[in-house]
Amino acid sequence: MSTDRILLAHGDGGQLMADLIAQVFVARLGAGDPPGDDAAQFAASGRLAFTTDAFVVDPIFFPGGDIGRLAICGTVNDLATAGARPLAISASFILEEGLLLSDLERIADSVARAADESKVRVVTGDTKVVPRGKADKLYISTSGVGEVPQGVSLSGANAQPGDIVLISGPVGDHGLAVLSQREGFEFESGIVSDCAPLAGMVEELLAAAPGVRALRDPTRGGLATALNEIARQSQVEIEIVESEVPVRPAVAAACELLGLDPLYAANEGKMVMIVPSDEADLALAVLRRHVYGVEAAAIGEVTKRAPGRVLLRTALGAHRILDRHVGEQLPRIC
Amino acid sequence: MSTDRILLAHGDGGQLMADLIAQVFVARLGAGDPPGDDAAQFAASGRLAFTTDAFVVDPIFFPGGDIGRLAICGTVNDLATAGARPLAISASFILEEGLLLSDLERIADSVARAADESKVRVVTGDTKVVPRGKADKLYISTSGVGEVPQGVSLSGANAQPGDIVLISGPVGDHGLAVLSQREGFEFESGIVSDCAPLAGMVEELLAAAPGVRALRDPTRGGLATALNEIARQSQVEIEIVESEVPVRPAVAAACELLGLDPLYAANEGKMVMIVPSDEADLALAVLRRHVYGVEAAAIGEVTKRAPGRVLLRTALGAHRILDRHVGEQLPRIC
Repeated sequence: MSTDRILLAHGDGGQLMADLIAQVFVARLGAGDPPGDDAAQFAASGRLAFTTDAFVVDPIFFPGGDIGRLAICGTVNDLATAGARPLAISASFILEEGLLLSDLERIADSVARAADESKVRVVTGDTKVVPRGKADKLYISTSGVGEVPQGVSLSGANAQPGDIVLISGPVGDHGLAVLSQREGFEFESGIVSDCAPLAGMVEELLAAAPGVRALRDPTRGGLATALNEIARQSQVEIEIVESEVPVRPAVAAACELLGLDPLYAANEGKMVMIVPSDEADLALAVLRRHVYGVEAAAIGEVTKRAPGRVLLRTALGAHRILDRHVGEQLPRIC
Repeated sequence: MSTDRILLAHGDGGQLMADLIAQVFVARLGAGDPPGDDAAQFAASGRLAFTTDAFVVDPIFFPGGDIGRLAICGTVNDLATAGARPLAISASFILEEGLLLSDLERIADSVARAADESKVRVVTGDTKVVPRGKADKLYISTSGVGEVPQGVSLSGANAQPGDIVLISGPVGDHGLAVLSQREGFEFESGIVSDCAPLAGMVEELLAAAPGVRALRDPTRGGLATALNEIARQSQVEIEIVESEVPVRPAVAAACELLGLDPLYAANEGKMVMIVPSDEADLALAVLRRHVYGVEAAAIGEVTKRAPGRVLLRTALGAHRILDRHVGEQLPRIC
């Protein structure tokens, strides 16, 4: 049976499913190891990092990426927050009946390219099909296993007063790229998602600045949410300076148009870093030499004033509390 | 904001999501380790097994289980097919706006109980919310990491002529439990899903019969599909004897009513085992002492006649080829 769309029968464990997996996934990602078995196997030792994310972004293709690239980058970057080198990734696909096979192939291409760039393999996967109207084209869940190098112990709980807060580049690109696509003005806006795998950049950072305390990728909820999490985990205050936070003019303009705050908009190729003050300059220099850190900036510092709080010093010198947001509705940004 | 249903805002990374995760997941499954970080960490060494599955079963509650128990058992059993002891599980949830919070809590309870029974923890997770009509209540993707004991090397490619084929109990219970629930005759049928975690049973099996060649859990596509996979991977023929394959009378009756073949119906608590003939009796004895293997049976043997083929010897002594099925439509059975 030949078809250019996904059928329910592609998900029932029979011959059609075997053909789909061979044609779409094995052709691009390789067979599992051992091939054909339900569990992949690989050697590892020491401390492992393990993470998972579901991806439901709408639309599935957006300026600068697609749901496939997003899924790999998201998982690689979660591993990178632990300083882990990615060892293996799993990917499970939930496909809506009627999905264009060519769209699935394009996304599988993206998955393969992003995995190559991240020097990791997708070693195991799963495919389910649900009837039309029970999903929206496709959803992907990825998990990753990484090896944490000896001596590396990063955690959002490690921030200390006096530390410097760095961001690896401008914030809000991913969220506004997806939203402007959804609103139909992606071409005028020119905004492109920052979706990128950061394991390589983090490896270089940690080699040069081994004192780094904490890394976090500011995805859903953006920079403000990531900083709030660290401030609570470490029981410190974090103060950032509005004028130091890089925001592209197009992102700032789109935020104004849509009534959004770029500090809460999603990023998919950025890292927030808490570093001891004596390593901050070196860390910045190393980041700026990396393709994904060229626009890295120091944006604030950790203090002991009000544990758990994040403060924004505005251009006028006033202070504003950057709280976790409540009930804002930007569904399916990642 | 208090609510008895899932809102879109539960998925946007803000305060509501943090509250939901604390109330539903952390309360039952514990915080990650380190708590609050994006990647969990744990120690491991040697050969690891890694597997993933997406679960989209409809309905989410069925006789004998629910989507939460299914997700944990499915992943534990995939690890068990490699002989691996489960080390850690990840779970990502895709929730439909409007899902009853009480349903989510009941499912999280199931996840916790099945993980306890499997002696493994859910160490990391993710939650996304999609608008009403873009999913069906909830989908779960789980991944698992397990440690493969030294000396254990199981694969569907290891079957050899002369080996015996074992099944750990009656086939088709899960598939028919879900289908009879969907068709509305679950009470008359009395069929209950076999959904169960098999890591403990497999550990006892391998301790007693270290020569076991291959394990496979016959989920989607059932026993016939699992045997076809092994026959192809190992390039052997597998012949099974219809009268030896255990099928509960209620399952056989429901299959007749619905026009289904129990050999192709899904199982979620069964294991197909290929064992050398000199270990078959011992293996059966060990299985039958285990709560999930009481009705284990020897159902056939591996031959070298027609590599890649699965043959069924019928009650009348005739032979029928059990091929991979094409285009049968039983969506969302797991």
